[in-house]
Amino acid sequence: MAKENQFVEQIADIESDFPQWYTDVVLKTKLVDYGPVKGTMVIRPYGYAIWENIQKELDARFKQQGVQNAYFPLLIPMSFFTKEAEHVEGFAPEVAVVTHAGGEELAEPLAIRPTSETIIGTMMGKWVQSYRDLPMKVNQWCNVMRWEKTTRPFLRTSEFLWQEGHTAHSTAEEAQTETLAMLEIYKQFMENCLAIPVLTGRKTEKEKFAGAVATYTMEAMMHDGKSLQSGTSHYMGQNFAKAFEIDFLGQEGVLEHAYTTSWGVSTRLIGAVIMTHGDARGLVLPPVVAPTQVVIVPIAARKPGVNEACEELRAELAAAGVRVVLDNSDNSPGWKFNEWEMKGVPLRIEMGPRDIEAGKMLFARRDTLEKSEVSRENAAASVQAILAQIQGNMLEKARAHRDSRIVYADDMAGILAGVEGGNFVKAGWCGCRDCEDKIKAETAATARVFAEGESAEKCAVCGKEAKHVIIYARAY
Amino acid sequence: MAKENQFVEQIADIESDFPQWYTDVVLKTKLVDYGPVKGTMVIRPYGYAIWENIQKELDARFKQQGVQNAYFPLLIPMSFFTKEAEHVEGFAPEVAVVTHAGGEELAEPLAIRPTSETIIGTMMGKWVQSYRDLPMKVNQWCNVMRWEKTTRPFLRTSEFLWQEGHTAHSTAEEAQTETLAMLEIYKQFMENCLAIPVLTGRKTEKEKFAGAVATYTMEAMMHDGKSLQSGTSHYMGQNFAKAFEIDFLGQEGVLEHAYTTSWGVSTRLIGAVIMTHGDARGLVLPPVVAPTQVVIVPIAARKPGVNEACEELRAELAAAGVRVVLDNSDNSPGWKFNEWEMKGVPLRIEMGPRDIEAGKMLFARRDTLEKSEVSRENAAASVQAILAQIQGNMLEKARAHRDSRIVYADDMAGILAGVEGGNFVKAGWCGCRDCEDKIKAETAATARVFAEGESAEKCAVCGKEAKHVIIYARAY
Repeated sequence: MAKENQFVEQIADIESDFPQWYTDVVLKTKLVDYGPVKGTMVIRPYGYAIWENIQKELDARFKQQGVQNAYFPLLIPMSFFTKEAEHVEGFAPEVAVVTHAGGEELAEPLAIRPTSETIIGTMMGKWVQSYRDLPMKVNQWCNVMRWEKTTRPFLRTSEFLWQEGHTAHSTAEEAQTETLAMLEIYKQFMENCLAIPVLTGRKTEKEKFAGAVATYTMEAMMHDGKSLQSGTSHYMGQNFAKAFEIDFLGQEGVLEHAYTTSWGVSTRLIGAVIMTHGDARGLVLPPVVAPTQVVIVPIAARKPGVNEACEELRAELAAAGVRVVLDNSDNSPGWKFNEWEMKGVPLRIEMGPRDIEAGKMLFARRDTLEKSEVSRENAAASVQAILAQIQGNMLEKARAHRDSRIVYADDMAGILAGVEGGNFVKAGWCGCRDCEDKIKAETAATARVFAEGESAEKCAVCGKEAKHVIIYARAY
Repeated sequence: MAKENQFVEQIADIESDFPQWYTDVVLKTKLVDYGPVKGTMVIRPYGYAIWENIQKELDARFKQQGVQNAYFPLLIPMSFFTKEAEHVEGFAPEVAVVTHAGGEELAEPLAIRPTSETIIGTMMGKWVQSYRDLPMKVNQWCNVMRWEKTTRPFLRTSEFLWQEGHTAHSTAEEAQTETLAMLEIYKQFMENCLAIPVLTGRKTEKEKFAGAVATYTMEAMMHDGKSLQSGTSHYMGQNFAKAFEIDFLGQEGVLEHAYTTSWGVSTRLIGAVIMTHGDARGLVLPPVVAPTQVVIVPIAARKPGVNEACEELRAELAAAGVRVVLDNSDNSPGWKFNEWEMKGVPLRIEMGPRDIEAGKMLFARRDTLEKSEVSRENAAASVQAILAQIQGNMLEKARAHRDSRIVYADDMAGILAGVEGGNFVKAGWCGCRDCEDKIKAETAATARVFAEGESAEKCAVCGKEAKHVIIYARAY
């Protein structure tokens, strides 16, 4: 109880004020800070280390898929955006524009990339000549900018970091297969690395990417029952190939337009981790991406041999590839427990004179808050095993939370009640835009994703025959 | 001779037209392409893979030094630049400015970072409270923009990628030590990873970074005898700490300004690799950073068993961590030899029916163009050994080239003759700005770096007593 109180002074209550809890946690754990320009963030070392682990995991998977990294310019001529009609309509309102450089006014204003389809399309148009050049698969890790009115660190900021993959193919089938293959890679990554279960599938016309034929999404449920769009994979058909002349000479000697895809995830994923796993005490980080996987806290550190034994354990774990920190600062053990719990370190190991004498150590799991006594022998193996358990348990816990909050509704009142209760709501839809708009207007929920393979009798709005089942939710 | 001719059709002669050779090589090996906006470049996968290897090597060294990665915003309020007088003077002329965003004119124009001292200084001012918060060491890998009139891929472009490290310390001594420690890390990296020997030391007042107390540089000699500034490490004293209020409460309870440093290298290093090691046939890449270290070319590939044996070798090398490609395309072996030589792959392995029968393979080194027959057994160990030899030989070759082109001069005519002959020229300097300006005006050479510990009798320009020896060179 004392510990609980100590925490309460630090961060807002997660159940009664989730938005303030979020702000408190991201600032106090030093994940992020506000930048001097409104709507910008500084990603501090503790937050950036999570991003580096995300990058490492995803990058290896992309390369396995035959994707190569490259880098395209930040500044894009404004005229490029007008070449694809839906694209310019979608992005023009939130673009930041460079009008002066080198002390002079520019002849043509330049946009800071909100996404790079137009410039990568232009370059692919130059590079692709024949079917032998296809498929072409490139990815870049970079910053992008979208001027947003309401911002929140990681979730929505004017500048953010992301990766954007872009591929070109000789057939529609191959491009569609690639679109879905990337979605599957993302899904596996979300579940195995971030311990976040996701619902995947297609977006409605209203919600799809500006210029895409079809957008596929991953939707994750946060602690408060809202949805976070965690990544998307777009099938562009020939829309961008036509606009940017990505043409190739086919095997029969005929010039054809290529079929393209794009797909991306961003630093928003850090927000997903915080809001999926966090609890009353602060962050709970999945071991795969936690900057520090294990913290060792010496007990009665001034007693002879304690610090030495803890340092020996630290070295042993570090040599085995565990990301481990020994906290031998002057603070009390209780203070350290709170601090490292707030920072979400998956495993704490306590070791004092009696443990050392008995050849033991104490494990304290962050996910369940359970403690257990473990033999000091084979410490690295025990640590690796419990980290794997924690990783698996976090996924199952998040899945159980999500699955317990998927409800069905037959009408608008049911949808409203469902989302107000913090649920994802499945409901029938006739397929018309009017009904989709009405739901948003009356419930503040949006169509997150098609529930493929499911069926319903009637549209929850108009009562006409339902063509699809949609998962509705309020979203970040 | 036939091979020589085939090459001549592709790229300009390295001796008679080095600038055109450079342009041909970077474009034809697909390292880079021109972006649509003047002065911008697209780093293509083959070029970006070199950058990834550079990042991996440097990043590990930075972390070893206690530096943590972070990310700071791209856009900086113009007013920040005016806080440090020399800094604004140095960077204002080449800044790109955002004036509009989200469809509206901004209240204050925003600069795209040309470097981040001002914004990182602002954040450090917020984060640093007491001596316990110091030293603070952060680094970011990011894009920066400097609007340049004359541009060349990798060497000088309006946007480039780099890393910028920024540290704050409680004493001048500690900050100076850090400045030099980072310079030494860079130097070791240049020699051990890029096989480029560098001269390190201090820059003159005229050539130092805008706002620094002292700038330390690494100067490398390119194939044509010109110098390339390959990286810098700056000691800022309290200049930025005063401007951005990086103040800390010292151990005696007195508020003091911190002492800061910054240091960076950029994608320019790829240009350094190209221009240091390249030869008449194209690129020659050091094994440590080569995207492909080994290419296997099957001879008489249609004969039974050849492709299988080559694939077996490829798998064996890949499993041992070698970056290896098996070229089983339809092109002739001769065509493949030229292509992979132009791309600078350090080692080619040829394997045909007779080699397979004899349990042999043929090694062809890119650096010396020597061939040798090697036993197929323990292939991975033989390959690792020859790659290490190539790496070492490339450094020694570059060092011998550089050392043979360092000359001394007593007067302006000597300096002019020296730099026109493609040399670094050591000469005495009285220390006055006028003499330094005159050398630049009359020889197009600049003071690259102080030759510390050396002495001369008189200044090569005015004939007065020399206080220093300077290394002059024409530079990129």
